[in-house]
Amino acid sequence: MTPPSAIGSRVPALDGVAKVTGAAKFTNDLSLPGMLVGKILRSPHPHARILSVDTTQASRVAGVRAVVSGKDTLGIKYGTIDPFMDELGLAVDKVRYIGDEVAAVAAVDEDTALEALKLIRVEYELLPAVFSPEESMQPGAPRLHDHVENNISGRILIPAGDVEKGFRESDHVFEDTFRSGWITHCNLEPHVALAASDLSGRLTVWCNTQVPFRFRADLAKTLGLSLGMVRVIKPFMGGGFGARWEILGVDFCAALLARKTGKPVKIVYDREEVFSASRRKVPMTVYLKTGVRKDGTLVAKHCRVLADGGAYNGLGPQIIASGATQLTNLYRFEHFRYEAYHVYTNNPVTSPMRGFGNTAVRFADDSQLDRIARELNLDPVEIRLKNAVQQGDVTLLGAKMKSCGLSECLEVVARETDFHSKRGNLGRGRGIGIAAGVYVSGSKIWVPHDSSSAFVKLNEDGSVSLLTGTADIGQGSTTVLAQLVAHELGISPQEVTVIAADTDVTPFDLGTYASRVTFIAGNAVLAAARDAKRQLLEVAAEKMKADPESLELRDHGVFLKGTTEQAMLLEEAVVAALFSSQGIPIMGRGSYNPPTDYDPQVRKGSRTLAYAFGAQVAEVEVNLETGQVKVLSLGAAQDCGFAINPMAVEGQVEGGVTMGLGQALYEDCLMEEGKTLNPSFAEYKIPSARDVPEIRTYLVEPIDPEGPYGAKGIGEMPQLPTCPAIANAIYDAIGVQIKSLPITPEKILAALKEKELQGVSP
Amino acid sequence: MTPPSAIGSRVPALDGVAKVTGAAKFTNDLSLPGMLVGKILRSPHPHARILSVDTTQASRVAGVRAVVSGKDTLGIKYGTIDPFMDELGLAVDKVRYIGDEVAAVAAVDEDTALEALKLIRVEYELLPAVFSPEESMQPGAPRLHDHVENNISGRILIPAGDVEKGFRESDHVFEDTFRSGWITHCNLEPHVALAASDLSGRLTVWCNTQVPFRFRADLAKTLGLSLGMVRVIKPFMGGGFGARWEILGVDFCAALLARKTGKPVKIVYDREEVFSASRRKVPMTVYLKTGVRKDGTLVAKHCRVLADGGAYNGLGPQIIASGATQLTNLYRFEHFRYEAYHVYTNNPVTSPMRGFGNTAVRFADDSQLDRIARELNLDPVEIRLKNAVQQGDVTLLGAKMKSCGLSECLEVVARETDFHSKRGNLGRGRGIGIAAGVYVSGSKIWVPHDSSSAFVKLNEDGSVSLLTGTADIGQGSTTVLAQLVAHELGISPQEVTVIAADTDVTPFDLGTYASRVTFIAGNAVLAAARDAKRQLLEVAAEKMKADPESLELRDHGVFLKGTTEQAMLLEEAVVAALFSSQGIPIMGRGSYNPPTDYDPQVRKGSRTLAYAFGAQVAEVEVNLETGQVKVLSLGAAQDCGFAINPMAVEGQVEGGVTMGLGQALYEDCLMEEGKTLNPSFAEYKIPSARDVPEIRTYLVEPIDPEGPYGAKGIGEMPQLPTCPAIANAIYDAIGVQIKSLPITPEKILAALKEKELQGVSP
Repeated sequence: MTPPSAIGSRVPALDGVAKVTGAAKFTNDLSLPGMLVGKILRSPHPHARILSVDTTQASRVAGVRAVVSGKDTLGIKYGTIDPFMDELGLAVDKVRYIGDEVAAVAAVDEDTALEALKLIRVEYELLPAVFSPEESMQPGAPRLHDHVENNISGRILIPAGDVEKGFRESDHVFEDTFRSGWITHCNLEPHVALAASDLSGRLTVWCNTQVPFRFRADLAKTLGLSLGMVRVIKPFMGGGFGARWEILGVDFCAALLARKTGKPVKIVYDREEVFSASRRKVPMTVYLKTGVRKDGTLVAKHCRVLADGGAYNGLGPQIIASGATQLTNLYRFEHFRYEAYHVYTNNPVTSPMRGFGNTAVRFADDSQLDRIARELNLDPVEIRLKNAVQQGDVTLLGAKMKSCGLSECLEVVARETDFHSKRGNLGRGRGIGIAAGVYVSGSKIWVPHDSSSAFVKLNEDGSVSLLTGTADIGQGSTTVLAQLVAHELGISPQEVTVIAADTDVTPFDLGTYASRVTFIAGNAVLAAARDAKRQLLEVAAEKMKADPESLELRDHGVFLKGTTEQAMLLEEAVVAALFSSQGIPIMGRGSYNPPTDYDPQVRKGSRTLAYAFGAQVAEVEVNLETGQVKVLSLGAAQDCGFAINPMAVEGQVEGGVTMGLGQALYEDCLMEEGKTLNPSFAEYKIPSARDVPEIRTYLVEPIDPEGPYGAKGIGEMPQLPTCPAIANAIYDAIGVQIKSLPITPEKILAALKEKELQGVSP
Repeated sequence: MTPPSAIGSRVPALDGVAKVTGAAKFTNDLSLPGMLVGKILRSPHPHARILSVDTTQASRVAGVRAVVSGKDTLGIKYGTIDPFMDELGLAVDKVRYIGDEVAAVAAVDEDTALEALKLIRVEYELLPAVFSPEESMQPGAPRLHDHVENNISGRILIPAGDVEKGFRESDHVFEDTFRSGWITHCNLEPHVALAASDLSGRLTVWCNTQVPFRFRADLAKTLGLSLGMVRVIKPFMGGGFGARWEILGVDFCAALLARKTGKPVKIVYDREEVFSASRRKVPMTVYLKTGVRKDGTLVAKHCRVLADGGAYNGLGPQIIASGATQLTNLYRFEHFRYEAYHVYTNNPVTSPMRGFGNTAVRFADDSQLDRIARELNLDPVEIRLKNAVQQGDVTLLGAKMKSCGLSECLEVVARETDFHSKRGNLGRGRGIGIAAGVYVSGSKIWVPHDSSSAFVKLNEDGSVSLLTGTADIGQGSTTVLAQLVAHELGISPQEVTVIAADTDVTPFDLGTYASRVTFIAGNAVLAAARDAKRQLLEVAAEKMKADPESLELRDHGVFLKGTTEQAMLLEEAVVAALFSSQGIPIMGRGSYNPPTDYDPQVRKGSRTLAYAFGAQVAEVEVNLETGQVKVLSLGAAQDCGFAINPMAVEGQVEGGVTMGLGQALYEDCLMEEGKTLNPSFAEYKIPSARDVPEIRTYLVEPIDPEGPYGAKGIGEMPQLPTCPAIANAIYDAIGVQIKSLPITPEKILAALKEKELQGVSP
C-alpha cells in the first residue's frame, strides 16, 4: 500500500492525543520547587494620579515574600514600536484604566497573596476620565498621556488616486457608518506566566506567549537585562488569537517578583482579569463612502475609521492601518482615501485580535456592497465577481496578487449553498447573505523584516528533529511544519519531533500572528529541510556514484528520480554519512524572509507575498417576535493555496467562522464608565455548540508561487466574511440592515419597529 | 581596561555557582507528577540457570504498579559493537555474576518496591563458577556464554617489527609481571535514570549518561523502538569517569517500567549497587619483556595482557587493545609484540574507566623502565628523554605526533621538583620517583568515525546560544566550549548559553570519553562559531562597504583587522542582519570528524590527530613499621597543547592525579567468589583530603596544529604516570619494587621482609 502523502492529507494533530488526554502540560500545569504565587493589585479608577503606595502592612503578612510597586521598577515603557511605547509593567505616576497594574505580591499561597493585596494602601487623586474616542478628541478633554496632544495616539492618511474626482465620475455614491463592539479573545487558557531567576540573575519565563522572541526582548528591556539573560519557553498553549502578543502585567510582575524573591513565581489571571485587564479588540466606527457606476463597477472609496484604543497603544496604531489594505486588496476601484484615528480613552487597552483591524472594515464594506447591489438591482454575487481582484493584479496600494482564488470562492460558495435559488425566496424571517474577505500571509508590522528560521537534524533511523522558534498556540503549526519536513525528506510526519519555542534553543522566529506561520515559518522550515536533503543526497550520490540531481527522497528511501527503484533506505543514507568514516551529521539550516516592497512611509507595496481569499454564505432565521437570530448554515469557500493539511484548514475555517459568528450576534463587553460589567463567561456570551451551525468548508486551492508547496496562511481570513454575510442574510430575511455589531435582538427589534414606523408614514 | 581574553584565561566554571549553591538540578533532583520508584532484584549467585521467576505475590502488594522480568523483554542483547554484544537488560535464562539483573518493580514508594522485591520467587539451578581469567581459560572451565569458547571473549595480537630479532640484538632483556586491582569509578552521583513514556509510546529518559546519543541508540534497540521514539536528556551530572558509558539495568529497567506502567519511573542505585553491580575498571595482569641496549636505548618490547572481563564484555575487548598504543606512543623502540586476552569470569562486569586500558600498562612500563635505568646505572630522567617520542614522529603503530611536549614535561617536572638532587638522597623511608604518560584526544572506538557537531545562534545583543550534544559530566566542557565560541565571536564566555545533551534538541555528538571533548567537540563548536562569524562579517562588510576578509570580531565589536578602530558594535551587526529588511538570522552550523588513518584490521595508524603527554614526580614517605605510604608532594607537568582554560586543566590534572593516587595506594574491591566484600565508602577507601598531597601542575603548551586554537584533550592522561611515579618513589625510599596495585602496607611489609630475608641469605 502506498503510504499517504505527508502533505495534502488529513494528518491528525501530532499533539492531539496528548491534548485530549490531559497529558499535555500547559504553563499552569508546571510547578517548580519553592514556587510562590503572585497576585496583582489593580486600579479601581479609570483615571487617577498615584500619590502614594504603602506596602508596609502587606509586607508584614506571614507568608508574603515580596511586595512591589512602580517604584521597584526601572520605569521603562514598552509597546510595539518606538514612538508608540507608552505602557509600564507597574504604574508609576498615574493609572489610566480600571485594571491598570499598581502593585504585586508574591506569597506562599494564593490566599496569603490576596490577603496582602488588601493591605496595600494606595492614595489616589482622581482625575476626570473619558470613555469614547469622540469625546476624547475634543479640545479640553482630559489628557491621558503627557506626550500626546488631543489623545490622538495614531493617525493615518492614505490617498491613492483622486477620490473626489472618483465620486464625481460615479453614477451613484453611497455613505454609511458602521460600528464594531467590545470583543475579547476568550482563550480557554487564561493568561499565565511562571518566572524563575537563577543565581547569576538569568531569568527563565514559561509563558503562553505567541511571540517568544519578541516577549524576550520586551521583558529584557523593561527589566534592564540583556537579551542573553532572559530565556522564554512556551509550553502547550490554549489559544492566542492576539491576546498573548505583548508582555502584560502577568509576565512583567512574575519576572520582577522572581528576581526580587529569588524564588519561582507563578501568576495566573482569573477570568475577570482576563476580561477586564488584559487586551481586547479595537472597537471601530467606520464611515464608508463609495462611488459606483450604474453597472456596479466600483470607482472610489473614502473610508474614515475612528478607533477606541483604550488607555494604552498596544499594537493599535498599526492595527488601524490594516483597514486600508482590506479595502483595496479585495475589490478593484481607482480612487481612494483612507483616514484612521487611534484615540486614547480611559477604557481597557485594545490590541491585536484575530482579524487585526480588518473585521470592522470588512463588515462595513461587504454590508454596503449588498446595499449597492440592492439599490442598483444587481445580483450580490455578480457585483462581487465584477469587481473582484484577480491573479496578476497589482492593487491600488501596490499589493501584488500572485495567486487569487476570490472569484472561484464566490462562485463555489454560491453554487454549493444554492445561493441564487434561495436569495429573496426563503420567506419572511429567513434569509441568505454572502460576503468575501482577504488576508495577508505574514506582514512587516513592527520590525522591517518578517523572518523565521529553522534547524533540522536527522537521526540515524531517518527520523528528524525540527527546531523552530514558531509558537504553536493551538492552531496546529506543529503538525503542518512536521508535514513539510516529512514530505521533503520522504518520511511520515509522525517521525518528525518538533521542538518549538524556547528562545535559548530554537532559532529565531517573529512569532505567531498575521497568519504568517504556514507561509513564513513554513518556507523557513522547508529551506532547512532542503538543506538537510541536499547534504544527504550528496552522500548517497557519492556512495552510489550517481549525480545528486538524479536522486530524490521518498517513502523512507533514496530513489532514482522518476523511477520506483529504491537505491537506498533513508537510514542507510544517514548512516552512510554519519556512521561511516566520514562522520558527517546531517544538519539543515534555513531561514526565510519574504522580499516584499512595502514602504511604511507611504504605506504602499506588498506587505507579504501571498494573500488568502474567501467567500462565505450564511443562511439565517430571525425570530420576528424576539429579534433573535439563528444562523442555520454557513458555507465557507476558502482559498488557502495548496492545503498542506485540509483538516487543519477546515479547523481554522470553523474556528474563524465561529468567532465571526460571536462577533456578529453575541459578543460585547458591556462598559460603564470604563468598567467591564460582564467579565465572565456567564455574562459575556460566546457561541456555544448549540449556536454554531453546520459549517461547510470548500477548499479552493490555487497554487501560490511563493508558498511552501503553494500554501498560504489562513488563520485569520475565515473570520472576516462572517459578520457581513450574516448581516446581509438578516437583510434578506427581514429587510433591515443593522450596521452595528453585535446584531442583538434589541437592535433587530428596534430596526423592525423603525421600519414599521417608516412603512406606516411614508 | 582590556577585558580578559576568553581563551587562555582562568575563566571560572560557568555553572559553578549553580553547583556550589545546590541550585543545579541533577537527575535525582527531578520529579514528575505520578512518578513511581523502581527497584531491581539481582542475582545472589555468581552463576546459575534461571528456572522460573514468579512475580505473582509481588504484583499483589498494594502500591506495586508493575513487576517485570526477562520474559517481559524482547531479549535483545546490547554491548559496544556487534560481535561483542552479550548483555541483556534483564536476564532471561542465566545469571552470570552476583548482581545480575533478574527482575524489577515499580511502586508508589521505595519501601513498597523493596517489599515487593522480597516476594519475587526465583528458582535457580546453581552452576559452577569461575573467578579468575587464568582458571577461566582452562579447558573444561565452566562456560559463561554459549557463543564463546574457552571464555576468551576478546583476543588481540599486534606484531610490529621482529620482536625476537629485537631481543637478540639487545644488550639486556628485562621481564616483569605487573598486576592492577579492582578499581571502580566512585562517582559522587550514583547511577540514576528517570523515564517517562507518553501516550504515543515516545520515551524520554533523564539520565546521568556520558553518551546521550549512544545511550539513545542502545535503549531504542533493546526496547524495540525506533531512534526517533526515544529522547535522552542529560541534566547536571556528578561525574562519569567511564561509569556511565553504557546503558545499565538502571536505565533499561526504568524505561521498561515506564512503558509498562504509563507512569514516570525513577531508579537510583544505592551505593552497594554502584559498587557491586554497575561497572569497574578491567583488572589486568601485564607481562612485559623489554630489550634494551646498554646505553638505555629501547629496542624491543613484548607485552602480554590478561584481563578479567567479568561476566559481560562491556567495552572490554576494545579496552585491552589500548595498551599497545600506550606502549608505542610514549617511548621509541623498533620491535613489538602485543598480545591481550579479555576473559569472561563470574566476577562483576568491567568496562571503561578513566585511563581505559592504559593505566596498568603504563604502571608496568614506567616501573620496568626505572628498573632498567637502575640496573644499567642510568638516570631515570635521562633514559626517558633518550627514548622519548618527539614531535614529527610516526610511531611503530603509525600514530603521527603533530605536537609533543613529552621531553619538555620530563625536563620541567624534574627541574621544578628538584628531582636530581633528591633522588637517592632523601634517606631511608623517603624517596622520589618519576614517570610519564601519553593519551589520545579522541578515538574511533565503536563506530568508524569520531564526530561531533554544533549549532550556534546569535541573539540581537550579540549573546549566543550554543547547542551541542556534548555531555558535560562535571569536567567543565560547558565552560571550555563557551570560551571557544566567545573568543571566536569576540564576546565573553558568560554571554554564551550552552544547551547541552538533549538528543531531540542538540546536534549529534558521540559522547564524553577518550578525552575527546575539548579536541573533537571543541573543533566542531569552533566550526559552528566560525560559520556564524562568516555570516555576520558578510553583513557587516556589506553595511560598511568593506571586504569581509578585512574585518574581525573582538571586544564585542567589528573591527578593521589590525586596527583599534571599532567599526560597529557586535549587536549592531546582528541587528543589521536580522532587524533590517534583510531579516537574516545568524545561525552557525559546524561539525568535526578527525581525518585519521587508523585501520582497525591491523590496528595501525593514528587513532586521533592529537596526543597529550605528561610526566609526574612523586615524593613519598614510607613508614617502615606499618608499611604505610604517604605521598608528600606530586609535581605534574602536563602537555595540554594550548590551555584554553588553565584552571580547568589544573582541575583535570588534580583529579587525575588523585584518582591515580587512589589506584596506587588504596583502592581495591575485595572479592570473594564473585562477591564484593567492601561495597561502601566506609570500606572501599579513596583518597580523602588528608591523603592528597599538594599537587603542583606545570603546563607545557606546544600548540597542536589540529586542536582548537592548538588545544588537546587531557581528561585521562594525568592519571597515567601517577601509579608508576609513586611506585618508583617507593623504590627510591625503601629499595623494593611493588609490582601489584594497590601498593598496600601489607605488600610493603611483605616485600621488606622478603628483601631482608634475601639480604641475610644471599
